[in-house]
Amino acid sequence: MSLQFKIEATCGNARGGRLFTPHGEIETPIFMPVGTLASVKGVPQDILEELGAQIILGNTYHLYLRPGIDTMRRMGGLHRFMSWRRAILTDSGGFQVFSLNELRKVNEEGVTFRSHLDGSSHFFSPESSMEAQIGIGADIIMAFDECTEFPADRARMKSSMEMTARWAARSKKYFEDHKHEVPWDSSQHSAVSSRPTQLPATFHDQTQSLFGIVQGGMDPELRKESAERTIEVGFPGYAIGGLSVGEPRDLTRDVIESTLEHLPADKPRYVMGVGTPQEIVEYANLGVDMMDCVLPTRAARHGLLFTSEGKVSIKQARYAQDAGPLDPNCGCRVCQRYSRAYLRHLYASNEVLAQVLNTIHNLSFYLDTMRRVRHSIRLGEEFSF
Amino acid sequence: MSLQFKIEATCGNARGGRLFTPHGEIETPIFMPVGTLASVKGVPQDILEELGAQIILGNTYHLYLRPGIDTMRRMGGLHRFMSWRRAILTDSGGFQVFSLNELRKVNEEGVTFRSHLDGSSHFFSPESSMEAQIGIGADIIMAFDECTEFPADRARMKSSMEMTARWAARSKKYFEDHKHEVPWDSSQHSAVSSRPTQLPATFHDQTQSLFGIVQGGMDPELRKESAERTIEVGFPGYAIGGLSVGEPRDLTRDVIESTLEHLPADKPRYVMGVGTPQEIVEYANLGVDMMDCVLPTRAARHGLLFTSEGKVSIKQARYAQDAGPLDPNCGCRVCQRYSRAYLRHLYASNEVLAQVLNTIHNLSFYLDTMRRVRHSIRLGEEFSF
Repeated sequence: MSLQFKIEATCGNARGGRLFTPHGEIETPIFMPVGTLASVKGVPQDILEELGAQIILGNTYHLYLRPGIDTMRRMGGLHRFMSWRRAILTDSGGFQVFSLNELRKVNEEGVTFRSHLDGSSHFFSPESSMEAQIGIGADIIMAFDECTEFPADRARMKSSMEMTARWAARSKKYFEDHKHEVPWDSSQHSAVSSRPTQLPATFHDQTQSLFGIVQGGMDPELRKESAERTIEVGFPGYAIGGLSVGEPRDLTRDVIESTLEHLPADKPRYVMGVGTPQEIVEYANLGVDMMDCVLPTRAARHGLLFTSEGKVSIKQARYAQDAGPLDPNCGCRVCQRYSRAYLRHLYASNEVLAQVLNTIHNLSFYLDTMRRVRHSIRLGEEFSF
Repeated sequence: MSLQFKIEATCGNARGGRLFTPHGEIETPIFMPVGTLASVKGVPQDILEELGAQIILGNTYHLYLRPGIDTMRRMGGLHRFMSWRRAILTDSGGFQVFSLNELRKVNEEGVTFRSHLDGSSHFFSPESSMEAQIGIGADIIMAFDECTEFPADRARMKSSMEMTARWAARSKKYFEDHKHEVPWDSSQHSAVSSRPTQLPATFHDQTQSLFGIVQGGMDPELRKESAERTIEVGFPGYAIGGLSVGEPRDLTRDVIESTLEHLPADKPRYVMGVGTPQEIVEYANLGVDMMDCVLPTRAARHGLLFTSEGKVSIKQARYAQDAGPLDPNCGCRVCQRYSRAYLRHLYASNEVLAQVLNTIHNLSFYLDTMRRVRHSIRLGEEFSF
């Protein structure tokens, strides 16, 4: 098994653990910032490192369109391409095909969709998603699934879940047959200039890990069946997908809680696409080990900032002459240096630095929050806001 | 005199000196990055410090419109507002009124213009420009001048130059009467929260310096007369304005060279709004001490990068799989970490990080270039590309 996972402490249902990837250890529970197009929008990689990001997420759909899998492969994979030395996870592309393509056509073989950039036609299947994800070369990659829409009736949820289960088996088969093709090998390394993106050579005996995804809509019975069928295929980690698709927040929580009961305790559990600071704490306390969400980065671009004193909409005129820091309890480089008045001015003036600084702060808040959750688990105390 | 200037070495006409401002020393010849709206677009202040920027430029016209002089004053001036501890220079607003307002009306009293943001009507005079620049509180501020358009006939150049001379006297009078109103005093400091923008308290006995501006179009005789009349008013430093307004590059150089002869050798000489890397080296070798230009920052936003091997248009497809650094001879954090392929991808994908990284590199190249020029002067060798 390429992926080791050790649970080192528990507190209630929460688990404090450690995941050993080819590009470094990850302390869990972990929040993964989203770097859609080989960039966490607006934030240089050294600042991400300084913020303590241990793993970031790339989107296969977007990377497949730009710069393309051929470029990824020739550049030695996404780590080298973007000069990110730590761990990366990619999604399968299924969610973006679902959310960005109203004209997609799904059949047993896969999904035909049109590029949101130029309307060109493309096809994703379990096999082509694996091929793309192996070319990108993330440490953890995801089975190709169908994200069931919400609302959906039981028959639709069931047939969709069953197709996801069949696609999980196909994903695993293709991955096992082709995982040696990951573009990490040393010949690739010397073929390209080594200067801008030097990486440790410690991962030559390791490879990627493929996680399965549980679907089943909002139905606890179908979720249970999906979990069982995915476990039967067998993966080193399991994700709960198909959430954050418009359902009420209580339902999200219920589905997570009931599905977790059916997942193996000794494997990492990943909930995809959640959530607010309160939600990621809540889900970690339920026993979730990994989460990702565009919320901190996307909200930052809209001037919505998360602080220890609640949400701040920095565009408001009330901050125009507020000389205090954004969050007096935050140690990030933004709160240590700049005032609310300055951040408000940057946002109101449409300055690019607004996005840069707002994103740094929001990520700092999320990563700090998860650091506190991990610390509390080790102390045996449940963390809450 | 608040502003000391020491020439420590010369090489031909070039001078290596040191300018002592209330917010620190500046080694000359110096290039000043432009931070139009209280931000060098896309670059956090700590990275500007790391790049070795010793002084940056703010635009009075833009700051007057956003966030406004009242906010500037209440926040303790631009240094505190943007948390920039080093020196700042502001222009007078005259050039932006000239370049952004086709409907401006100029008379002896001043200029009526419309905001490019909302069309609202405003008025700048020598007195109101000084009032705004004292409120902003830059270390070096500029007399209110009329930037003569190009081409212009001799009568127009002469009458415009003469009005600039009268405005220089009015600027100086207002400044001398009001310079104690700069918002740096300690009561202001304690009135606002001191945490995000702590500044050294060393400047309480110092104040701003006002520079005069030489105009006169492209006519050497009028430039000479303008220099004499500006010197007669008396300033601690002199700028050559009215260039980079569409004239050929040879003419720019000729006007600079001939005008420099008429400026006092013991005072800093500032050429406004120039130039390419080759030009700033050339002008430093002519004896210019200070320059500013939007070129490195604006070009960066359009993917045009300056390197030791010439200009690179990073958008070109030829760089899509180029794993080498942007400039193999550059030590900046961008060239040390990222490949041309990655920078090309960021630009082609319209990622904000493209602007951030491109701007950091271009500023690094400009600031490094001037560092080399200063070093060469001290070695007694003329620097050239």
